[in-house]
Amino acid sequence: MLEKLKEIVCEANRQLPKYGLVTFTWGNVSGIDREKGLMVIKPSGVEYDEMKPENMAVVDLLGNRVEGIYKPSSDMATHLALYQAWPELGGIVHTHSRWATSFAQAGRGIPALGTTQADYFHGEIPCTRPMRPKEIGSPDDAAAESPYERETGNVIVETFRRLGTLPEEVPGVLVYSHGPFAWGTDPWSAVHNAVVMEEAAFMDFHSLMLEPQLPPMQRELLDKHFLRKHGAHAYYGQK
Amino acid sequence: MLEKLKEIVCEANRQLPKYGLVTFTWGNVSGIDREKGLMVIKPSGVEYDEMKPENMAVVDLLGNRVEGIYKPSSDMATHLALYQAWPELGGIVHTHSRWATSFAQAGRGIPALGTTQADYFHGEIPCTRPMRPKEIGSPDDAAAESPYERETGNVIVETFRRLGTLPEEVPGVLVYSHGPFAWGTDPWSAVHNAVVMEEAAFMDFHSLMLEPQLPPMQRELLDKHFLRKHGAHAYYGQK
Amino acid sequence: MLEKLKEIVCEANRQLPKYGLVTFTWGNVSGIDREKGLMVIKPSGVEYDEMKPENMAVVDLLGNRVEGIYKPSSDMATHLALYQAWPELGGIVHTHSRWATSFAQAGRGIPALGTTQADYFHGEIPCTRPMRPKEIGSPDDAAAESPYERETGNVIVETFRRLGTLPEEVPGVLVYSHGPFAWGTDPWSAVHNAVVMEEAAFMDFHSLMLEPQLPPMQRELLDKHFLRKHGAHAYYGQK
Amino acid sequence: MLEKLKEIVCEANRQLPKYGLVTFTWGNVSGIDREKGLMVIKPSGVEYDEMKPENMAVVDLLGNRVEGIYKPSSDMATHLALYQAWPELGGIVHTHSRWATSFAQAGRGIPALGTTQADYFHGEIPCTRPMRPKEIGSPDDAAAESPYERETGNVIVETFRRLGTLPEEVPGVLVYSHGPFAWGTDPWSAVHNAVVMEEAAFMDFHSLMLEPQLPPMQRELLDKHFLRKHGAHAYYGQK
Repeated sequence: MLEKLKEIVCEANRQLPKYGLVTFTWGNVSGIDREKGLMVIKPSGVEYDEMKPENMAVVDLLGNRVEGIYKPSSDMATHLALYQAWPELGGIVHTHSRWATSFAQAGRGIPALGTTQADYFHGEIPCTRPMRPKEIGSPDDAAAESPYERETGNVIVETFRRLGTLPEEVPGVLVYSHGPFAWGTDPWSAVHNAVVMEEAAFMDFHSLMLEPQLPPMQRELLDKHFLRKHGAHAYYGQK
Repeated sequence: MLEKLKEIVCEANRQLPKYGLVTFTWGNVSGIDREKGLMVIKPSGVEYDEMKPENMAVVDLLGNRVEGIYKPSSDMATHLALYQAWPELGGIVHTHSRWATSFAQAGRGIPALGTTQADYFHGEIPCTRPMRPKEIGSPDDAAAESPYERETGNVIVETFRRLGTLPEEVPGVLVYSHGPFAWGTDPWSAVHNAVVMEEAAFMDFHSLMLEPQLPPMQRELLDKHFLRKHGAHAYYGQK
Repeated sequence: MLEKLKEIVCEANRQLPKYGLVTFTWGNVSGIDREKGLMVIKPSGVEYDEMKPENMAVVDLLGNRVEGIYKPSSDMATHLALYQAWPELGGIVHTHSRWATSFAQAGRGIPALGTTQADYFHGEIPCTRPMRPKEIGSPDDAAAESPYERETGNVIVETFRRLGTLPEEVPGVLVYSHGPFAWGTDPWSAVHNAVVMEEAAFMDFHSLMLEPQLPPMQRELLDKHFLRKHGAHAYYGQK
Repeated sequence: MLEKLKEIVCEANRQLPKYGLVTFTWGNVSGIDREKGLMVIKPSGVEYDEMKPENMAVVDLLGNRVEGIYKPSSDMATHLALYQAWPELGGIVHTHSRWATSFAQAGRGIPALGTTQADYFHGEIPCTRPMRPKEIGSPDDAAAESPYERETGNVIVETFRRLGTLPEEVPGVLVYSHGPFAWGTDPWSAVHNAVVMEEAAFMDFHSLMLEPQLPPMQRELLDKHFLRKHGAHAYYGQK
């Protein structure tokens, strides 16, 4: 069942260490088959280099395990909340990548300061508000009753609604005191966007150290770079 | 004697360069067999890639060499002081890893600013006070009469007592002007915690540069992350 | 046609990941055959490790594709503008290398602070002014009608004219909110200068954090280092 | 002639890229045979991975080429000036390593802030004064008549005399606006000290960003760490 998607999700998970986005098992990628209503996601706490397609966890959109002997990632409910809110998503990645997480810990978004970010993100990558105690729940909650992971997804969706930002224009977010989530039309593009976010966080950190009051880049340049890659008249690559 | 523990300690030492925690021979891991009252530790000044289980030094809890032709790490007495004060420890690691040592040199602990740290450390990783001249001793002290290494362990224990911090909740510390120690229930978990500490130090440095007045993360989030991995109701991994 | 130049340009492109200057496909190198009036350049969006000499795009100096099934890099027109303005150029490289781009995003040049830069750049590596909306054009422009890429070249040339800087003395520039371009007498020397620029940006960032008011290095030392490598009496290397 | 020393110097040069101290050919190691009055040094501008013992340049103490078809490093006269002033030196290394050079560009020494530095350097690694125009000479000087390289050595010696620092206690220096030199009793210990200096510069940079007014470490701890490795009663390693 879902053999192709399990292969893709497994391979996308294995790219996380290749691109330097993870330490130990701290990152997970998922993919969705919208027709069948099933999500494939990394199993919890399994090493990337021992991971095989048949280890991937398959769950339905309520989070029930459908196949596989492994428990899904503890972040499963966050992935599900995003897929449910945003039908355009085909893949999601969560990591604790070093530079993006440094911004998340500071409670700051990653501003659009240059064309590296503009090529993939049509503006600032926002940071959510802190989560409320009720959303975090009790440390004694068992997995099944914990509101935390689902509410992490909800606070991401709320952030985009509040800012009027579209998830297909800004395919990533920082969760306050936590770290980045990125997404795309499939698991591979989600990983791609996570790499770009990390690169942009690196550059923005240093630009802001040089010029603490640096304003966002000019609107015309932001639009030009995003749309020459993603607009109706895109002309980048071999398309 | 202790063949299994020597293998584990040797392998744990060899992971230090793999995780980028050491330059040259600047780091050492030990493990303890509490029933036999013996500690196995890296030999002093030996290269990691030439190290074999039979090179490990075995000492009793007074630091007497019991087996092996190699002298134990010059930090032996610090390890022994920690094992004696804290019966829950099964492995200890000391390094001069770059990011954690940068905080130690600044005399500052590594504050809990995000979930990366909260997953393994239930609060700030503290920094000890400076050592007193009497504790450091004379530069002419021979190894056997030097109080310095044992007092380094004592000042760590004093720090945790003063703060009311439990070593199983915060499995690591910074020694002022020196560098990090980390521990765990076995040598491997000690190395694991040392890697997390280095990662947290990296992130905290950059978050603090972005927001110098950044307060610690919210208590509820700290508890949630630590306890979903380490509490009675833990649900992370394949347990 | 141009078999030798295609090999050189292909090999120079493949050096970009080797020197850590690129992520994904974010960098391109070109070379020119001035006698034939043809430029060879990386194809758009192709991976470095799949790249072969026969994939290189060959265009005339108006940007018309002369050979090859691949579309040239979307930055083609910037390369052409520089070759046309500066007859001494034989190779050009553009990347989003991390440290140089951090300066470009901050809108600051890379000042001459030490002999590392002085060995290859006879002074500050300047940053252009922001581009004007008219120069950027509309996000709906198709590739053929977009003024943006050519104007990027023009603003570079304008910067050097305004400052009275010679491109053979300062073989590189930062484009505001964008990233670095470097050049040389051939594609290899262009890559070499791009590596030096990245190294100098790293060092300058940290020197400026230590001493924010740091003035440029003394003129005599700048001249000595640049000219002992590049002057009439050069004596560096095995020449 | 000097076959053994040429092997050692070649191997020590090849360790520079292994330890991340050099880009391209920007670093050189030398060794001296004091009985024969000859110095062996890296040839100018030759790649490390193509370097063989027979390529090493052999010069007498006046800098005359005695053997070998390759020109010696352009920094030859600096090495000679140090060997002549300080009879305890057996090996010297010069690089543009990134972190140490960042301090040199800022005109600041690397203060003794922790035990990592104290294990090898008995105090601050000083930075020289700027060189005078007369010491730099004219950019038109040919190699043979250039005072610059020898005066670089002289300003290093002057710095240590002025501060009352002994070269065997602080085996390294920063040259203002330029970069680090390190030395030891042989080429290998010189490289070792260069690696430690780079590590200490990394840590000090970050400690100083966290605490800009950080004072030097306490004297007792500095003495203890330096002397337990290098004093009459040293007890580190397997000696």
